[in-house]
Amino acid sequence: MRLATLRDGTRDGRLVVVGRDGLLVADASGVARSLQAALDRWDETQPRLRELAQELDAGRLPGHPFAPGAVHAPLPRAYEWIDGSTYLTHVRLVRKARGAEVPATLETDPLVYQGGSGVLLGPTDPIPLGDPAFGLDFEGEVCVVTGDVPLGTRAEDALRHVRLLCLANDVSLRNLVPAELAKGFGFFQSKPATAFSPFAVTPDELGPAWRGGRVHLRLLVKLNGAVVGDLDAGPEMHFSFADLLAHATRTRALTAGTIVGSGTVSNEDPARGGSCLAERRTREQLAGGAPRTPFLAPGDRVEISMAGPDGRDLFGHIDQVVTA
Amino acid sequence: MRLATLRDGTRDGRLVVVGRDGLLVADASGVARSLQAALDRWDETQPRLRELAQELDAGRLPGHPFAPGAVHAPLPRAYEWIDGSTYLTHVRLVRKARGAEVPATLETDPLVYQGGSGVLLGPTDPIPLGDPAFGLDFEGEVCVVTGDVPLGTRAEDALRHVRLLCLANDVSLRNLVPAELAKGFGFFQSKPATAFSPFAVTPDELGPAWRGGRVHLRLLVKLNGAVVGDLDAGPEMHFSFADLLAHATRTRALTAGTIVGSGTVSNEDPARGGSCLAERRTREQLAGGAPRTPFLAPGDRVEISMAGPDGRDLFGHIDQVVTA
Repeated sequence: MRLATLRDGTRDGRLVVVGRDGLLVADASGVARSLQAALDRWDETQPRLRELAQELDAGRLPGHPFAPGAVHAPLPRAYEWIDGSTYLTHVRLVRKARGAEVPATLETDPLVYQGGSGVLLGPTDPIPLGDPAFGLDFEGEVCVVTGDVPLGTRAEDALRHVRLLCLANDVSLRNLVPAELAKGFGFFQSKPATAFSPFAVTPDELGPAWRGGRVHLRLLVKLNGAVVGDLDAGPEMHFSFADLLAHATRTRALTAGTIVGSGTVSNEDPARGGSCLAERRTREQLAGGAPRTPFLAPGDRVEISMAGPDGRDLFGHIDQVVTA
Repeated sequence: MRLATLRDGTRDGRLVVVGRDGLLVADASGVARSLQAALDRWDETQPRLRELAQELDAGRLPGHPFAPGAVHAPLPRAYEWIDGSTYLTHVRLVRKARGAEVPATLETDPLVYQGGSGVLLGPTDPIPLGDPAFGLDFEGEVCVVTGDVPLGTRAEDALRHVRLLCLANDVSLRNLVPAELAKGFGFFQSKPATAFSPFAVTPDELGPAWRGGRVHLRLLVKLNGAVVGDLDAGPEMHFSFADLLAHATRTRALTAGTIVGSGTVSNEDPARGGSCLAERRTREQLAGGAPRTPFLAPGDRVEISMAGPDGRDLFGHIDQVVTA
């Protein structure tokens, strides 16, 4: 089942189910007015939403054409956005770029930060750039949306709390990072609003590609129409979503609708490209003494998508243009 | 006007207005079912809530006795919890305690971290302590709850977006802090769920004590019934709430219902005591070579409150007991 949130003038939008081909959506507000409301009582709403999706696919329910610009993020505002950094190639490269040490516990203790979640961007929302000197970058990520996850959940019990998956563009302001992290309190101004894919999908849509708490599919990233990353999101995710959920609930509980991100999808093989510019700039610097690729400027277009096991566009496209 | 959220079995609880004496509350769910719903359309709900409060005080509306255990945090789940560290005495003391440097920009750039906001504790909720080795501590703070705050709000325009004020106990696990901050991504496991005062109050309730984006009142902190802090929350708040809102919106917008905290209220004069144990332990260490005060243990009781300009218990009491 795939779900999306139509813009309707309200803060949380209107929940719709998405047809199998991704061309039609059908109103689901009779089951739950918003995705958050559906997640709040998932045991009751999930089967009814699945029924609606089946009716839509069978042609027994009237659908409306899906238009990418008509949707919000699946959760236009969320109670938590927790982002990991589980692809160690990314951690090693970006830290090298800013002359920072890799943590001693890199391979044993997940890197996780708490992101702002009150204002999230839709898949085609422009990325506002206040100052070109900020060093605007994208980060293609895979995310899970959870139900209630109790305090002290163990990794082996964690995946039962995963309700949905989606993609994110974790917009980053690279030139604000060093000074901010030097203060010791983590990211804040350097992580503006994050954007999400049109569709949030249940794990069964991924079939065997969802295993071990990882998404074994390819993330495709384009900059101004050219492929800059074609990455395998599976094997190099060092900590799984199960590990991230266990880490996040060691000292507190999570509420339904919490979004947890994988961090920038990254592969060791440079031929796969990257899902952010920072890695490419670091590789250029290591090879030739200086980065050649500039950060994003107004007019630049970023697309992030992932094909499902059957070749379908699984989550719809994140497709954003930078504006001044 | 003072507002509170009654536990009623739902995730967001039921909104009530609080009588002038703090003894009676009256159902406000006819205006907005929850505080979040009221904040979502504040221009419309605020005057109607004020009317209800006046009716209650005039005896024209039936009230119910207020019971501290019957309320949630004003927002049992919030879209963002952004916590500053604006009392520089606190920053200097806790960093000294853990042998960390004070940031070079301490006096010019606010320290702010993004906290978890999906599960917040009510004023009398127990503080669960998973492991005594975590080094459990309290932090008494003053907070504002905002409306929508646009991207790029300037400090001089920021205070118009303050809807309510409340108190917080920013529960901290001191012994998890050094390793976590060494990783560079800020607090996560070291900041479990934060607790809030029973009442969230409109700024006019503070009269002239609310000025310059600071609360010029005394924060009273008790540990096991003994006063450990009697602090002036006003003059030593180096960055005001206006500064914090300008900082927070430099690169993104905030949504209605965002909670922004002052950080641990702290005074330079040791005779005022402290609103956390970490400062006291550091002062003991500096004076005698080792901290004598232990961190919190199961059974310990923490109370945090603030008297208003007229001597009333302005926000009600945070009154929590640590449980194993």
